[in-house]
Amino acid sequence: MELTKTSWQERYRATQIFTIRCKINDNPSTLAAITQAISKTGAHVHATTAVGIEDADIIHDIRIFCTSKAVCDEAVAAVKAAVKNAQILSVLDEVLEIHRRGTIEMKSRAPIRSLTDLRMIYTPGVADACKAIERDPAVAWDMTGICDRVAIVTNGTAVLGLGDIGILASLPVMEGKAAIFAEFTGISAVPVLVESKDVDTVVNTVLRTAASYGAIQLEDIAAPECFEIEEKLRDRLNIPVFHDDQHGTATVVLAAMINALKKVGKRIEDCSAIMIGAGAAGYAITMALLKFGIKDVTVYDSFGPIYRGRTNKMNKYKEHLAKMTNKNNEQGSLQDGFKGKDIFIGVARPKMVSKEMIAAMNKNSIVLPLSNPIGEIDVADALAAGAAIAADGRTINNALAYPALFRGALDVKAEDITFEMQLACAKTLASLAADGDLLPDVLDRNVHKEAAVAVAAAWKKS
Amino acid sequence: MELTKTSWQERYRATQIFTIRCKINDNPSTLAAITQAISKTGAHVHATTAVGIEDADIIHDIRIFCTSKAVCDEAVAAVKAAVKNAQILSVLDEVLEIHRRGTIEMKSRAPIRSLTDLRMIYTPGVADACKAIERDPAVAWDMTGICDRVAIVTNGTAVLGLGDIGILASLPVMEGKAAIFAEFTGISAVPVLVESKDVDTVVNTVLRTAASYGAIQLEDIAAPECFEIEEKLRDRLNIPVFHDDQHGTATVVLAAMINALKKVGKRIEDCSAIMIGAGAAGYAITMALLKFGIKDVTVYDSFGPIYRGRTNKMNKYKEHLAKMTNKNNEQGSLQDGFKGKDIFIGVARPKMVSKEMIAAMNKNSIVLPLSNPIGEIDVADALAAGAAIAADGRTINNALAYPALFRGALDVKAEDITFEMQLACAKTLASLAADGDLLPDVLDRNVHKEAAVAVAAAWKKS
Repeated sequence: MELTKTSWQERYRATQIFTIRCKINDNPSTLAAITQAISKTGAHVHATTAVGIEDADIIHDIRIFCTSKAVCDEAVAAVKAAVKNAQILSVLDEVLEIHRRGTIEMKSRAPIRSLTDLRMIYTPGVADACKAIERDPAVAWDMTGICDRVAIVTNGTAVLGLGDIGILASLPVMEGKAAIFAEFTGISAVPVLVESKDVDTVVNTVLRTAASYGAIQLEDIAAPECFEIEEKLRDRLNIPVFHDDQHGTATVVLAAMINALKKVGKRIEDCSAIMIGAGAAGYAITMALLKFGIKDVTVYDSFGPIYRGRTNKMNKYKEHLAKMTNKNNEQGSLQDGFKGKDIFIGVARPKMVSKEMIAAMNKNSIVLPLSNPIGEIDVADALAAGAAIAADGRTINNALAYPALFRGALDVKAEDITFEMQLACAKTLASLAADGDLLPDVLDRNVHKEAAVAVAAAWKKS
Repeated sequence: MELTKTSWQERYRATQIFTIRCKINDNPSTLAAITQAISKTGAHVHATTAVGIEDADIIHDIRIFCTSKAVCDEAVAAVKAAVKNAQILSVLDEVLEIHRRGTIEMKSRAPIRSLTDLRMIYTPGVADACKAIERDPAVAWDMTGICDRVAIVTNGTAVLGLGDIGILASLPVMEGKAAIFAEFTGISAVPVLVESKDVDTVVNTVLRTAASYGAIQLEDIAAPECFEIEEKLRDRLNIPVFHDDQHGTATVVLAAMINALKKVGKRIEDCSAIMIGAGAAGYAITMALLKFGIKDVTVYDSFGPIYRGRTNKMNKYKEHLAKMTNKNNEQGSLQDGFKGKDIFIGVARPKMVSKEMIAAMNKNSIVLPLSNPIGEIDVADALAAGAAIAADGRTINNALAYPALFRGALDVKAEDITFEMQLACAKTLASLAADGDLLPDVLDRNVHKEAAVAVAAAWKKS
């Protein structure tokens, strides 16, 4: 029982997209020959477009999905072999092309077409807006973009599954998150790269530049520094501070869990869980599951289970986990850890979980191997090994949660994004999933809107 | 000889714009009665639009220019008195309305309509862009928005003519500048509010967050801290750092000066000048005039002329001015300072210069009273007192310079904005002015484009 969407793209799982621009004879059968040739390689044709005509030739853009650059090279060779005189004009890496010059841009909300426009937006008119704020600082919320503006703050120490690649290499992720904010909820997000691994330096830099934002999203900051940075900023700012790798992920996991439990007919109170990963996501998901009502969860990090009395590679957050989880104080192997569990959640490393481990779980098990871009176990393998439900990071996507959480918080000028707001978001997401799906369509703008309304209502209620 | 554009708006000089929404009888003569009534007050009708119909009534938006809110109240009363049963539904302050929720917004450069879009902009595709930058950090210039992104940094200590109103109240100005950047040159500018008056704190905060920007614009930072902050940042960053209040203003003044000198048939080398104001703009304009070739300029601050040997209220920048200017070491009154001068430039306080002072200048004098929003002397008064050319801040607008300076610098990945680039910008602006005008139309996108090309060429030449 595969609950993930089986769109062709997810089926093929291709992560690379190339466009082959080729000049061929303007003969209707030539394009057929090209697509035929490509179909015999590992590449899949996504789209073809005639982009130009030159005398007897026609220029086609053939967009293909590939699992690697090598597959694209294969496709190019196949086109050359199949079509006489085909000229390959260029091969573009579309992923890099979409990131060229960045995926976001700042725009003026009003056109500046007349001197009147200019004099209202800029001097001398703007002085009226300044003076209104000087008289009453609370006016700034309405009289500037603060009400829609979020800082996406990173120090580049835990970027995607790539690790500590530095702030510069992390920027495409921050821009991508900002593009999603803009498209899904109209939030204006600004990447803020802070060049420091020191907790207090990051905190102080954010504090000193926080005035123009209505909320702060922390992103891709390594544990355990991320916990301290978030704690200190939350203490000292009266706007929401939210580490997405923690709470965004936890919110989407909760949403999926609500539907998964319904599907398998279990109650969270009765479930036992094994969690692999005690970093930002693992810690936050565990805390969220506990608040959601789970009684029995054991967390593994790369050194084994976290238990009371463990002394190796602990920190104050793992001590807290040891206190709150692992009710039987299990100290066995990872293989042992799966035995008799109802739920597995992985936020650790690709392909580290075996079919045997899944097979050792209880009947009707829920398996969420979320490491990115490749899960701890293949979804199909998990299902084959007996999981009732399996879904990975392609389904459990935090782009479903963070836009609505921030939109909802900003809409009611919330000073925090609380667990209650996350739970309201998760419940709304769960309720909007199509029959048989764990989660709704991330592209459906109405999903984000409804979730944001629920988040805002949860703040007002508290 | 008034060289400024005589658009009705500049003639009326109204700085406030209101929209009166009123419901009136749907009788063609009623609108005529309303505009007639308003015309007898101090308000000027800018536009009327029928925005709704209700049974026998029609709802009109009457947009008026006023010199104050009191004039608007007058107009509202006049409408009520002139039209029986006229219902005033609302009176909107349009300047505040245009700043409501801010004048800028971050947008996605590509639509996110399919899972493929999402997977290219965000995970897993984005990892390719990250890895490309990790391998070669220089790639970040092309593979992110850095090439188009400028930080507009302020600490709110010298905002417009309003002074030290703080970072929050300064935000509408920073947003307005960003809106102009976006509209005129496609630059993505981000307001960065730094909560500190300490030079090193501001410098360190900017240094730690500079990685995602292609250039830094400093804005509305008080002298003399602005000089130190700029110097330190220029020393430590390999991207342009440019204090607009200094160099943007100086660039536009140079452009106007080129045309003004041509008009009066004088050479800069032969001119003597009096400058009032030794803050950011005054200092930078003086330095620019010296580089441009002037031999005789005396600078006044609020304590009198700056001269060699003065001990009161000096700092190292004023010491430098004392060394470089005031060749006769004049120590007299402001009135004395105007005698026999060819050029007056004011960047100080409204209405501090008298007709008598202007009358004491040489024949064919050039008078630029630039204090904002009201000049040191009224342009009409200056002309009446004998100035050959007079123009104030409405004409000498730095929105003509900074967009092109940054666009040109970013286009060639310049590491600095040099005086040569400013001069190239000024010369191009001067060359594009219509006959009789000092400067070209700030709304003409082609002006910004051509100036940016000249700026880029000047960097490449150096």
